[in-house]
Amino acid sequence: MASGMTTKDGKPFDRAALDYVLRRRLFYTPAFDIYGGVSGLYDYGPPGCALTNNIVDVWRKHFVLRENMQEVDCTMLTPYEVLKTSGHVDKFADWMCKDPKTGEIFRADHLVEEVLEARLKGDKEARGQKVEEKGEDPKKKKKKVKDIAVVKLDDALVTEYEETLAKIDNYSGDELGELMKKYNIRNPANGSELLPPVAFNLMFQTAIGPSSNLPGYLRPETAQGQFLNFAKLLDFNSQQMPFASASIGKSFRNEISPRSGLLRVREFLMAEIEHFVDPEGGKKHERFDEVKDVELELLNREVQLAGKTHVETTKIGKAVETGLVDNETLGYFLARIQLFLLKIGVDPKKIRFRQHMANEMAHYAADCWDAELLTSYGWIECVGCADRSAYDLSVHMKKTGAGLTVREARKEPLKIEEFQIDVDKKKFGPKFKKDAKPVEAALEALTQDLREKLSLDLEKDGKIVVDVPGVGDGKVEVPKELITIEKRTRIDHVREYTPNVIEPSFGIGRIFYALCEHSYWTREGDEARAVLSLPPTVAPTKVLLVPLSQHKDFKPFVRTLSDTLLDLGVSFRVDDSGASIGKRYSRNDELGTPFGITIDFQSVKDNTFTLRDRDSTKQVRASLDDICKAISNMVQDREKWADVAARLPAFEAQEAEAS
Amino acid sequence: MASGMTTKDGKPFDRAALDYVLRRRLFYTPAFDIYGGVSGLYDYGPPGCALTNNIVDVWRKHFVLRENMQEVDCTMLTPYEVLKTSGHVDKFADWMCKDPKTGEIFRADHLVEEVLEARLKGDKEARGQKVEEKGEDPKKKKKKVKDIAVVKLDDALVTEYEETLAKIDNYSGDELGELMKKYNIRNPANGSELLPPVAFNLMFQTAIGPSSNLPGYLRPETAQGQFLNFAKLLDFNSQQMPFASASIGKSFRNEISPRSGLLRVREFLMAEIEHFVDPEGGKKHERFDEVKDVELELLNREVQLAGKTHVETTKIGKAVETGLVDNETLGYFLARIQLFLLKIGVDPKKIRFRQHMANEMAHYAADCWDAELLTSYGWIECVGCADRSAYDLSVHMKKTGAGLTVREARKEPLKIEEFQIDVDKKKFGPKFKKDAKPVEAALEALTQDLREKLSLDLEKDGKIVVDVPGVGDGKVEVPKELITIEKRTRIDHVREYTPNVIEPSFGIGRIFYALCEHSYWTREGDEARAVLSLPPTVAPTKVLLVPLSQHKDFKPFVRTLSDTLLDLGVSFRVDDSGASIGKRYSRNDELGTPFGITIDFQSVKDNTFTLRDRDSTKQVRASLDDICKAISNMVQDREKWADVAARLPAFEAQEAEAS
Repeated sequence: MASGMTTKDGKPFDRAALDYVLRRRLFYTPAFDIYGGVSGLYDYGPPGCALTNNIVDVWRKHFVLRENMQEVDCTMLTPYEVLKTSGHVDKFADWMCKDPKTGEIFRADHLVEEVLEARLKGDKEARGQKVEEKGEDPKKKKKKVKDIAVVKLDDALVTEYEETLAKIDNYSGDELGELMKKYNIRNPANGSELLPPVAFNLMFQTAIGPSSNLPGYLRPETAQGQFLNFAKLLDFNSQQMPFASASIGKSFRNEISPRSGLLRVREFLMAEIEHFVDPEGGKKHERFDEVKDVELELLNREVQLAGKTHVETTKIGKAVETGLVDNETLGYFLARIQLFLLKIGVDPKKIRFRQHMANEMAHYAADCWDAELLTSYGWIECVGCADRSAYDLSVHMKKTGAGLTVREARKEPLKIEEFQIDVDKKKFGPKFKKDAKPVEAALEALTQDLREKLSLDLEKDGKIVVDVPGVGDGKVEVPKELITIEKRTRIDHVREYTPNVIEPSFGIGRIFYALCEHSYWTREGDEARAVLSLPPTVAPTKVLLVPLSQHKDFKPFVRTLSDTLLDLGVSFRVDDSGASIGKRYSRNDELGTPFGITIDFQSVKDNTFTLRDRDSTKQVRASLDDICKAISNMVQDREKWADVAARLPAFEAQEAEAS
Repeated sequence: MASGMTTKDGKPFDRAALDYVLRRRLFYTPAFDIYGGVSGLYDYGPPGCALTNNIVDVWRKHFVLRENMQEVDCTMLTPYEVLKTSGHVDKFADWMCKDPKTGEIFRADHLVEEVLEARLKGDKEARGQKVEEKGEDPKKKKKKVKDIAVVKLDDALVTEYEETLAKIDNYSGDELGELMKKYNIRNPANGSELLPPVAFNLMFQTAIGPSSNLPGYLRPETAQGQFLNFAKLLDFNSQQMPFASASIGKSFRNEISPRSGLLRVREFLMAEIEHFVDPEGGKKHERFDEVKDVELELLNREVQLAGKTHVETTKIGKAVETGLVDNETLGYFLARIQLFLLKIGVDPKKIRFRQHMANEMAHYAADCWDAELLTSYGWIECVGCADRSAYDLSVHMKKTGAGLTVREARKEPLKIEEFQIDVDKKKFGPKFKKDAKPVEAALEALTQDLREKLSLDLEKDGKIVVDVPGVGDGKVEVPKELITIEKRTRIDHVREYTPNVIEPSFGIGRIFYALCEHSYWTREGDEARAVLSLPPTVAPTKVLLVPLSQHKDFKPFVRTLSDTLLDLGVSFRVDDSGASIGKRYSRNDELGTPFGITIDFQSVKDNTFTLRDRDSTKQVRASLDDICKAISNMVQDREKWADVAARLPAFEAQEAEAS
């Protein structure tokens, strides 16, 4: 149990208990379990799969549908060339250290972090201070350090350790190697010195086609497919800017040694938006006004560099105004991200936005804010919102020559003062013969600065000398009769630019897990009964149908209710097992099912049913139509339970206990 | 253009024209196009992605929700051991031949097929017969054979070729090699003899984790993840049989040389159901009655072996009764598959079910029927419905020892007559000492036949001799005083069995493509205008909002309509470009958008709008609420256009032309 974390009803949060529920109820389960499992790979069972689908569904409505984004589905298999250009082949890596004796492999930053934290803990114990179980960081969950040595450290060293830990995401491989030497960090299991950190590329490699001459990778993000299709998407959007593409799909990271359940996995579902925007004009957003009063908890770069974690609550309008958040488009998405997280049921007190520090950012990012959710593992990055500038479009354009730019008519034609070179073609050809073309090309390629200088030469010497590699000795003399160089005004009607990209990128698995922690609590009673208070919109199954017993009179009612719910597209399960009503509801509280309909003898008489609310266990009694309509409304977030309870007659019955 | 294929309005189908529409409107596009593309990899643009999502959505409602299936999401990365056990490492392969001179690689069966077909064509021409352009088979689309030699063949050879072609999917690698020798089939480009066919495994290989000692593959099907989780899913289903799991996700095949657009790709979306059923009791299905009158076109194994393609229309009830289809569960799914295909808009005249021939079936299948859709490439397998028997669960159980069985209380306890062996423990221990346990275990392991024989020995000789490896000389003598062997009746209350699996497996990309062919036609007019008549339920975008012009008075109406449609969850696009109304509708006919709302000056006056139906181009005029409600109904398949046209006032206006 991590102290500090509490459930929404204020009781201490018990991670092991939640994990037991999630696994027993098959929200998720280790993949290939009967083969011993593979670390970092998990399967989602029926409730987990449904919860994920529902989160994705809300996401698609909140972002794609509402904002008319261009959703695309690109392949995961990606040829080498693409990821070489994007920088992933060279830079998408973690640092690993090998124990030369045992062959064991460690992720360098996690090892340093864990060892230093263990020493600080030992120090506290030695000083007789209370050791608080902090929320642990999932990044170091391998738990190499098992025994904490109770040793008092120098005060100065304690400060050094603390500063190092605050910047742990910022170190290069060499720096990590130096820290390991300086602080004598070794294999905790056997005390061996480790080899210096080497980069391990995190992409899964494969070969495409039978001749193995086309190496490829599984994509590490969905973004590249969107960038490569930019020109087609712009065309599909009738050349209108700005616009956003979006993609929902699996990506892959070959983690060195994943150990934190759903928070660090090798195959994961992402939902990514690439919002293409003109870099000029301050990256305004036309709907920014709609969100400007949304309040966010912002933890900026400077505060973190000072080793602090102070968070300010700020209206996003204010944050953009003061420059804390760089521009309206970035601010718009931060606010929209928060609104999405709240919609699916994340605890509003457990969201913050943290700005990346300079060294921490991905190789393509110009600025980045993470939406972090508080869990028993600490604050976890669940959504990244990066300004990737023009990085990706530029590198792909440079590599392939494809026109990944926007061309637009200027409202005001641009007047450009420039030195222009005119060649007298009639004389130029006869004079230079086969060299005429390269010489002319060399002239064309001259910069404005050089043209200015040469125009003076021409006036002074009656000729100029130009570098033309491959022609004669590489220097070519052009006499005055053949050219003129003049400063003139050119009118440019078309502006061509490479868009910048703002990228909100959602890790659906992490959001899923944080949401489960935020939704979990236990009901008072003889024994603690677990409840997952997932909102009706995202709950895996919406309704449990509970006939009082297996009496045959109840069967036609179960059928009618089922058909009605099917028609409404509301997912349900029937539980006509012999277990007590309380026990049946208890199982479904764990599954997060928000509503229950009981079919009893009164139902047979007058065709009314009771409807139970999971969170309050309160019930109402009404006709089939009224009950199904109310459920449909609540599932579509058009009514809350409070509204339904206010308009339908209450049904008083003691909540059947789970015994 | 493939003759024979016609559009739904009876005109010749033009594949090139459809393909132009699908690519121009970004339904799909070659992946990594700006890098030159990778064969067999395609991206889906906005309309393609939406169409796919909508097909999946209907699938989930039709199967998962309606039949309470357990949807799971398992990882694509799969360790070697799992796929070794399932048989894929050894058997999931195609035969390829290499040209030793050029290094070019051919898929053997496709090459044989293409060469023989070319020769038959040349023969027909030589005989002066009309050569009919048959629907081509996508499997041989590489089109190695470019020039057809006009050569008359012996009549007997023609028959041989035709019989070979009818069984082309049935040959082993050796047989293909023999055919190539016998018929002198070489590299069509240079006449080189090819090396004999070798197996090429179609799975993409990779390494999991940093130490590369865990080889893995990308899954070739979603099924294995479902099998491995069988015990947990059975538990989740409260140990009730039968039940089905389902999974929607990407799978991978490293095709040797894919060349048929969306029909043969290396990465594809599958939707698979694994229905677990008791192998005893005839595999009945409790809802079979609901579908027994559904009529299917069935092409059985015997007809095909005779080299024919005669199809019978049969009620599925009748087909199961006569044994043409093996059992109710298989029959139930065939009918449900057809109902699904019709629901998403597949042409009822272009569906048939073809039974696999014995050699053609996958290594795990006991029987298999394919739902094939007629396209310009011929009849294409889009859904497989295989009886995988207990193959997969058995092999995984054998390999891992996991209990992938069902244990159920027998309704009638089973009386079993058997020879039981009782050991007199008091005497047994002292006599055999440390060997007592192995000797007892050896007795326990004796078969019924041996027990019977030994009971006679015991009576006759007063002792028995048993094989106990590792004890003495491997033979142990047990005297009469220590044991009794008697025939007795045992009552067995629990039955344990390994379920059989019926697997309907959907290739969503192939269904997608066939559906586009079936939906495509061209409107009469000055120039042929393409229309994709996709049903409202699956159409990528449901509504186009068309303000008559960019007049500012129209803007608030666009906003109100947008908000209302958003609330209803109906996807829409606004087209306020300067193009003519006709041109704007024309673009959206190509996108398959079923409805259009025009905002005109009448709207500003009385808040009414016209609603246009894509297929008929008929219009009605009504209030905002009435229009939006009608659209919502049609999108949810609760009303048809005919119903709406009957109850809302018609609006007469000439369809604005596309000029």
